[in-house]
Amino acid sequence: MDAISVNVKHLEETEEQCTHEDKTGTDTVEEKLISSNEHSWRPWQQSRSRIRECVLYVKKVLVSFASMEWYCYALLGIITALMSFFMDMTVAKLLNAHQWLYGCLKGHHLLQFLCWTLYPACLCALSTSFAHSICPFSAGSGVPEARAILLGIDMPGYLSLSNLFAKLFGLICTLASGSTVFLGKVGPFVHLSIMVGAFMNRLHVSCRGGKQRAAKGEMLVVASAVGVASCFGAPISGVLFSVEVMGTHYSVRDYCPCFFAAACGAITFRLLSVCSRDQETIQALFKTSFSSELPYQPFEIFIFALLGLFCSILSCIYLFCHRWALRFVKTNKTISRFLATEKTLYSAIVAFLLACFTFYHSAGHFIAAELTMKQLLTSLLDGTSWYTVSQNASALPEPQNTFWQAWNPPGRGYFQTLGFFITVKVGLLVVACTLPLPAGYFMPVFVYGAAVGRFVGEGSAYLLSDGISSTKSLINPGGYALAGAAAFSGAVTHTLSPALLALEMTGQCSHAVPALVATLVSNAVARAKHRPSFYDGISLIKQLPHLPSLIRACPKLANVQIKQFAVPAGAVLKRTDTLTSVQHILNDSTDTEVPVVDSHDSPILLGTINKSQLRECLQEHRNEGSCKRLEEVCSIQPVRLHLTPESTVKQAHCIMSVTGEQRLFITESGRLCGVVAWKEMKKIIEEMAKEV
Amino acid sequence: MDAISVNVKHLEETEEQCTHEDKTGTDTVEEKLISSNEHSWRPWQQSRSRIRECVLYVKKVLVSFASMEWYCYALLGIITALMSFFMDMTVAKLLNAHQWLYGCLKGHHLLQFLCWTLYPACLCALSTSFAHSICPFSAGSGVPEARAILLGIDMPGYLSLSNLFAKLFGLICTLASGSTVFLGKVGPFVHLSIMVGAFMNRLHVSCRGGKQRAAKGEMLVVASAVGVASCFGAPISGVLFSVEVMGTHYSVRDYCPCFFAAACGAITFRLLSVCSRDQETIQALFKTSFSSELPYQPFEIFIFALLGLFCSILSCIYLFCHRWALRFVKTNKTISRFLATEKTLYSAIVAFLLACFTFYHSAGHFIAAELTMKQLLTSLLDGTSWYTVSQNASALPEPQNTFWQAWNPPGRGYFQTLGFFITVKVGLLVVACTLPLPAGYFMPVFVYGAAVGRFVGEGSAYLLSDGISSTKSLINPGGYALAGAAAFSGAVTHTLSPALLALEMTGQCSHAVPALVATLVSNAVARAKHRPSFYDGISLIKQLPHLPSLIRACPKLANVQIKQFAVPAGAVLKRTDTLTSVQHILNDSTDTEVPVVDSHDSPILLGTINKSQLRECLQEHRNEGSCKRLEEVCSIQPVRLHLTPESTVKQAHCIMSVTGEQRLFITESGRLCGVVAWKEMKKIIEEMAKEV
Repeated sequence: MDAISVNVKHLEETEEQCTHEDKTGTDTVEEKLISSNEHSWRPWQQSRSRIRECVLYVKKVLVSFASMEWYCYALLGIITALMSFFMDMTVAKLLNAHQWLYGCLKGHHLLQFLCWTLYPACLCALSTSFAHSICPFSAGSGVPEARAILLGIDMPGYLSLSNLFAKLFGLICTLASGSTVFLGKVGPFVHLSIMVGAFMNRLHVSCRGGKQRAAKGEMLVVASAVGVASCFGAPISGVLFSVEVMGTHYSVRDYCPCFFAAACGAITFRLLSVCSRDQETIQALFKTSFSSELPYQPFEIFIFALLGLFCSILSCIYLFCHRWALRFVKTNKTISRFLATEKTLYSAIVAFLLACFTFYHSAGHFIAAELTMKQLLTSLLDGTSWYTVSQNASALPEPQNTFWQAWNPPGRGYFQTLGFFITVKVGLLVVACTLPLPAGYFMPVFVYGAAVGRFVGEGSAYLLSDGISSTKSLINPGGYALAGAAAFSGAVTHTLSPALLALEMTGQCSHAVPALVATLVSNAVARAKHRPSFYDGISLIKQLPHLPSLIRACPKLANVQIKQFAVPAGAVLKRTDTLTSVQHILNDSTDTEVPVVDSHDSPILLGTINKSQLRECLQEHRNEGSCKRLEEVCSIQPVRLHLTPESTVKQAHCIMSVTGEQRLFITESGRLCGVVAWKEMKKIIEEMAKEV
Repeated sequence: MDAISVNVKHLEETEEQCTHEDKTGTDTVEEKLISSNEHSWRPWQQSRSRIRECVLYVKKVLVSFASMEWYCYALLGIITALMSFFMDMTVAKLLNAHQWLYGCLKGHHLLQFLCWTLYPACLCALSTSFAHSICPFSAGSGVPEARAILLGIDMPGYLSLSNLFAKLFGLICTLASGSTVFLGKVGPFVHLSIMVGAFMNRLHVSCRGGKQRAAKGEMLVVASAVGVASCFGAPISGVLFSVEVMGTHYSVRDYCPCFFAAACGAITFRLLSVCSRDQETIQALFKTSFSSELPYQPFEIFIFALLGLFCSILSCIYLFCHRWALRFVKTNKTISRFLATEKTLYSAIVAFLLACFTFYHSAGHFIAAELTMKQLLTSLLDGTSWYTVSQNASALPEPQNTFWQAWNPPGRGYFQTLGFFITVKVGLLVVACTLPLPAGYFMPVFVYGAAVGRFVGEGSAYLLSDGISSTKSLINPGGYALAGAAAFSGAVTHTLSPALLALEMTGQCSHAVPALVATLVSNAVARAKHRPSFYDGISLIKQLPHLPSLIRACPKLANVQIKQFAVPAGAVLKRTDTLTSVQHILNDSTDTEVPVVDSHDSPILLGTINKSQLRECLQEHRNEGSCKRLEEVCSIQPVRLHLTPESTVKQAHCIMSVTGEQRLFITESGRLCGVVAWKEMKKIIEEMAKEV
């Protein structure tokens, strides 16, 4: 960890130096590489210099095709896809091992019970302890924090390398505990991808020098798109996600990089499946084969809209329970005291309890608990109606997969199983959300939505089985499952990209309109009356510095003026200061730019002086005596934008995140009275968050 | 026209009044409706008041579900879809009439020739004369102008009702002249949709009062998404188009309205097809049925990337020719003089010449000219390889449509036809682009791209026919046509949404990755070295006030400072002004807000006073004598944001379009030295455009 932070510091220093040097970029690296020639004590001098030349040549060739950042984008996509694929592979192997062991113990109920419960409990405990001992920030989804980071707020702990490893390993353990704890991968994966993006940004900066900040935001937005894209091999919904996650304004300049990196990620992810002989060609992750002849009747659009409404009502219940549970865990003295010290034990106990409930011989066979999340989704998205299959099992083709039998256990119909699943799973999901380990909450919600959709679809198929005469126009409950998944997850997260994600995951363009209708209806109801989304709720409870969610929860915060917060200007230079009196500023102030005012009596802002430039000036004029005044030796850079104390915080935040300004000066009738940089902005938003 | 402009003026006045009244909105309308009770001379008093009550009741019920703007969005989608559908229907009837007449004249070559050439010539002449006599702004695509309007620039002529009718009628005539002139519908339709959006905005404002400006931009962005969505029934690519067309920053607040309105438009458009018995259910416009078993081999992705490269090279040639032609038409004295007076004749002559060339017995049978654009696209997107069909016509199923025979005329192979089509059509497209009539240039480019893709696909199918052993994994040239269409149109317009559009139009999710790869590659090459896109080229040649395209063409313009342009502050009040001396400001100044400064010697900006508030103050204090000073009677509103003369134009433009500020004050050390509102911004950008 120390080595890394030293490395990062070194990089940052290099950047600072580079900003005032030639910005062509290539020179800096060449110089650095050539200057290392001096270390003549190092072995293999000749081969090292040859390799160095090769690297420089390759770089030259690459840069002649496209600028370096595009390679970084591609690399970001590829690395994330590799991570995603190998994570999936590891998790699949761990899940298989569990299933194999469980199968071996057939007939021994007690041993089976122990296998079923202890395996996930141990994995959850491992995940929690690992995450919390390495980096406590790695717990949870990471999307709420990522949203704040993408808007410009600095949260250094969340982008560290230790967090990356903790999250990666923790997530594998969480996913391997399977459908018992029922947690997903997307959210942490977006966070992981953003961490990789931050490292790519450093790589890019070390290649080019300068322009670090502006490019950083860009790389992180691209990384958020890549996260979704390489998780499911769905590039377009990745890009839509990156638009939605930005909250206020999406820079269209990021659009092409997002698409490019997302496509790189998605293609790599799917090609890896092809290489590993999972698939014959690049195909959708949950490929379905609905009848394309007549996918649905036009009147069914109304049923899809009703499904959207139903999903939104369920989502409101779920979100209410979720917020209640989070607040309960936080405020209940016993639990919070227990959690403060014994996070691992808490995880193990909760996972054990969940596993007890989902054990086949307790309530497991009521909710198809023996299926993994992938199998659940595959079974729910199946294009053949279970009603038709149960009516005449011999005449019609079997559903493509045999998982559906888990929904139709002996002695009970699939309606009962689905209904029980929908009723009980809300509670289980909410309990699982309180686990303090790296985990995603999107996929569980997606699968739950698919179950709701399937329920409505099977209901429609049952009710309308006589109404429609020709066999050609049978109702396809798989389509309802698809629309339900999109609608429910869209309602929970207040986003529309799940509609496209559902299409990309299943490869079913034919159901674009139903999925979109259901998602729009569910979003309309879920967003009404300033209800916070899933991520907003977490942001509010964790008091994260995310302004859009604060304003959504409490609209009058949009009018809070900046004068309500003390934002002193800090170190200030006077035009008439002599060079000697300036020295202390260089030592005290931590900012890169120092404002210059007219005089202390009327501090009219004239501009800023860069600290490194000031340092140069001082060195240049060291011999000429120190009586020279500042305005004579340094050029004062004009300030392009002034805020006034009446500016709202929202306005300042918007301008800073859109124009890429790192600090805004607050003036009143030309007189400097404050400065807002991202550090102050973070404090202001945190203060506002405390008031909500 | 007069009645409309009066109506518009009335609306604007109402808005101005409303901003300072109660903003609950409902009251305004009720008052207006009730006040009309005074007109006792009007007939049917009782039934009128009953209807009025009903309308108010319905409004109340509607508003209780969602705010009024959402109904406006839905209405916008539905109206645009209706326009699109009835336009398609009329055009189809006119095209059928032409084909029927042409068929009747079989055997009479001269008569056939006259029918083939005079029909489009007359229609183009009609379109041109109608467009130019009603509203000269209606010529061309409208997208370059729409881009400037969406960024906040006021271009009143482009959103008038007369323009709407001229464009609508002109476009029907243009489309009805068929594949001879080979022009499309998308661009003008986006423009039409934006006009409808502007009217919807007025409706919304008249319902609510206040907040006109901010909402206007939102409605227009939504309208741009609706334009694409209801043209092809493709909602998601409509939203992506609206992101791309914004140029700099996309407000995420517009995202949901865009999706909602686009979905309304697309669903209405497709449901109308179902109602008119064209389709059995809601389906893609150019529905294809590629084999979903193994849509393509992984190695084919490289061929798709090569196709993208090929398309981008062709697009560069096309764009170069297009810009050259536009400049030639503008600068060549003979043509420009002829065009200045005889636009109609020019259109007729060019259409006649194009028709002569595409006549079957001249060069028409080399380029499958007898097919309409729809038939061309359907034939090119066909999933069966023509090579396979020509090899063993009996064994394999026929391609789903018989149009492919037009590509395989007796005595010539389809390769020759496709090759000739690709070579010749560039010239024909460029010539057609110079026609001064309402027309879209996207669809021709899309079809051309499909032909390029088909050519590459058929080539691959021919070359690799032996290489792949099993019949299952035959190469599908339809997929190449799809990717080629996306890649070529994407390269020409510098956008990525065509990739999604191609998928939505054909309903083929399986080819998402190839289409995306080809489009990304083609975009990468097409955008390199600051080459302007199709729309950028038109913007530059027409000197439209569109800053992003100017900066793209000449990157150093991004650093132009605002002090290079004279932007005087206009009418200014002093803090110590007496009320009598203020009277002239009310009469002279046209702005709604007047800045207030400290004194004329040191004009430090204190804030602004609203003109209507000033008027009220004057009336209140009329009797108290006029010696009262301004600061005693009026409250001065603080200014929240100051620019300095060193601010760049780009920065000011960005802040105005993102924060919705209507005017920014320029101060130097607190002293007011200028104002930038949208009017001044337009002038500044126009001046910059002249320099490029």
